[in-house]
Amino acid sequence: MTTNHQQFLSIAAESMRESAIRRTGAVLGSRRDIISFAPGYPAPDTFPWNEFGEIAAELLGGREAGVLQYGPTRGYRPLLETIVSMMEQRGITTKLEDLLVTTGSQQGLDLVARVLVDPGDVILIELPTYVGALSAFRNGQARLVGVPLDADGIDLAALDAICERVRREGGRVKFLYVVPNFQNPTGLLLGLEKRQRLLAWAEHRDVLIVEDDPYNELYFEDSAAAADVYEACRRGVLARQLPILRAHYAHKRDVMEQALRRELGTDVSWPRPKGGFFLWLTLAAALDADKMIPRAVEHGVIYVAGAAFYVNGEGHNTLRLSFSAPPPERIEAGISRLALTVRAESEALATAAATAAPEAS
Amino acid sequence: MTTNHQQFLSIAAESMRESAIRRTGAVLGSRRDIISFAPGYPAPDTFPWNEFGEIAAELLGGREAGVLQYGPTRGYRPLLETIVSMMEQRGITTKLEDLLVTTGSQQGLDLVARVLVDPGDVILIELPTYVGALSAFRNGQARLVGVPLDADGIDLAALDAICERVRREGGRVKFLYVVPNFQNPTGLLLGLEKRQRLLAWAEHRDVLIVEDDPYNELYFEDSAAAADVYEACRRGVLARQLPILRAHYAHKRDVMEQALRRELGTDVSWPRPKGGFFLWLTLAAALDADKMIPRAVEHGVIYVAGAAFYVNGEGHNTLRLSFSAPPPERIEAGISRLALTVRAESEALATAAATAAPEAS
Repeated sequence: MTTNHQQFLSIAAESMRESAIRRTGAVLGSRRDIISFAPGYPAPDTFPWNEFGEIAAELLGGREAGVLQYGPTRGYRPLLETIVSMMEQRGITTKLEDLLVTTGSQQGLDLVARVLVDPGDVILIELPTYVGALSAFRNGQARLVGVPLDADGIDLAALDAICERVRREGGRVKFLYVVPNFQNPTGLLLGLEKRQRLLAWAEHRDVLIVEDDPYNELYFEDSAAAADVYEACRRGVLARQLPILRAHYAHKRDVMEQALRRELGTDVSWPRPKGGFFLWLTLAAALDADKMIPRAVEHGVIYVAGAAFYVNGEGHNTLRLSFSAPPPERIEAGISRLALTVRAESEALATAAATAAPEAS
Repeated sequence: MTTNHQQFLSIAAESMRESAIRRTGAVLGSRRDIISFAPGYPAPDTFPWNEFGEIAAELLGGREAGVLQYGPTRGYRPLLETIVSMMEQRGITTKLEDLLVTTGSQQGLDLVARVLVDPGDVILIELPTYVGALSAFRNGQARLVGVPLDADGIDLAALDAICERVRREGGRVKFLYVVPNFQNPTGLLLGLEKRQRLLAWAEHRDVLIVEDDPYNELYFEDSAAAADVYEACRRGVLARQLPILRAHYAHKRDVMEQALRRELGTDVSWPRPKGGFFLWLTLAAALDADKMIPRAVEHGVIYVAGAAFYVNGEGHNTLRLSFSAPPPERIEAGISRLALTVRAESEALATAAATAAPEAS
């Protein structure tokens, strides 16, 4: 007798999907020379190898049992204390008991969904938003309701109208999920004045805000070199690295923008990323970034199609380009390949339309 | 306006509880000289510090980007390949696509519950069983139904009767959770012949078995030294460590058993642990191990009260003693303290009974 395992699956498991980003990994495995703008990988040449080597040698040489033993559930205490002081610098007063260190942001998002969401509860999200959060929230069987973005972040009038509509229809709004700094995938920054209005709105409407903030320190403009020198003394490796990282990623952002202007000019548009890892590209409305992927792979380039970041079926002509990992010359070559792809796809569509037209008339 | 956060919690979150094992951590923080038999910590003096130091230096010195970069979801490929070959030695043929490396066993249990369990689904578990699994399954809002244990593991006749009763009453049995080797908390080993009958039963009744097997390699009897010499050559650090670990923990088990016989004699009973980290102690029926904890702490010793491992309210006079972490002399001292605790508690109960008796008549 062969067991039918399908019958044992939970409702949540039946709707689980593979990550749109992780899916591109299979494409990369299949061909040698593909330039990848798909996953938001940090650049390995910026990793502080020497420091990590020294720290590892020190920790393992000391033979302090706690280093290899089970640790406390909330995280290593000196790390928690460092986080408290980092939060303080951002004007956020917090206590050790308020903190929980997770194994990556995905675990954090998962825990948030599980502690706050029952099946059918509403989570308000940005259109578009981080696809990993969508997965975590879908696994919690949440109902995801999108709110459009302006150039300076979430559209507050739309947010209020949508929230009130959901409530009138009997929906339970559990929280608003926002990525305020250099959002994934759009690279947008939520304006300061709008942040304050958003907070006032949340208090007025009694809505929780779940803030996801991976790129806070990776801003490209207004970087105050003097403050960094002070920080380096006070905070060690991380602070010493930050100015290096900002310069590194700002340069790659510049290289990608210049290449896009040169290669694709007015055929595409994008908001300038003021920080983070991503550039959000909008193609001509006739193009479908997901359907274009096989042609892109043929030309030796890969990206994440934008539709996966939307919950309302929009974004077919958008795509996310990550400039963080490839070296500058690969970014230039990759954008050339992307330009060839876009042109070939446009021509193929025009030809198909010309062939189809007589039949339709 | 102050936000009432309680109103936002999910049904699952409202029933989440602190771990009975982790709770003992607070007691340990409060007093300097407490001998802990509570958490199942490995002995830090058996950690292979030199090997770990060399491996870390090699990995970080090589500057191969993948070492510090995001890795594949299922785990590091050479590790997956090693697991396939370890499983093969146990007679289990598996493929890379069947494996998923998790961040500790608790994540594995959590994923199992989420992929298989809808609220109200039944999970069959041993009485008693691993408390971490109970937490993970409760978080999935499973209905936990207990099956008694014999000296050689789960009672198969009871298992069948319980499973059929649950089904007659309309319950959906999703799986049976078993820890067959040196079970946590009882230390019991599921007999070979009973394993085969259990598998036949599961196939006959179409029930999945979820096996949790942390202590497989930590057996104390029948250890074949010759095979270990071969394994050491073939498998490196882990195999070199295993004979050391078996001897280390077997010795501590012996020390604990001798101390128990000497100090508590016939006042307590336990099944001999043939492997693993735990000894499962049964006190006189009048004693309550959970209520006895303050007195134990007073005497400078701590354990995990057994009731937390049961889902049916049994086990008030049982407790789990972990012999893995403390050095032998601390095990002896700790058992002396436990004996003092048990005697003081018994006397207090006798006094209370004598005082109460006249009033009742």
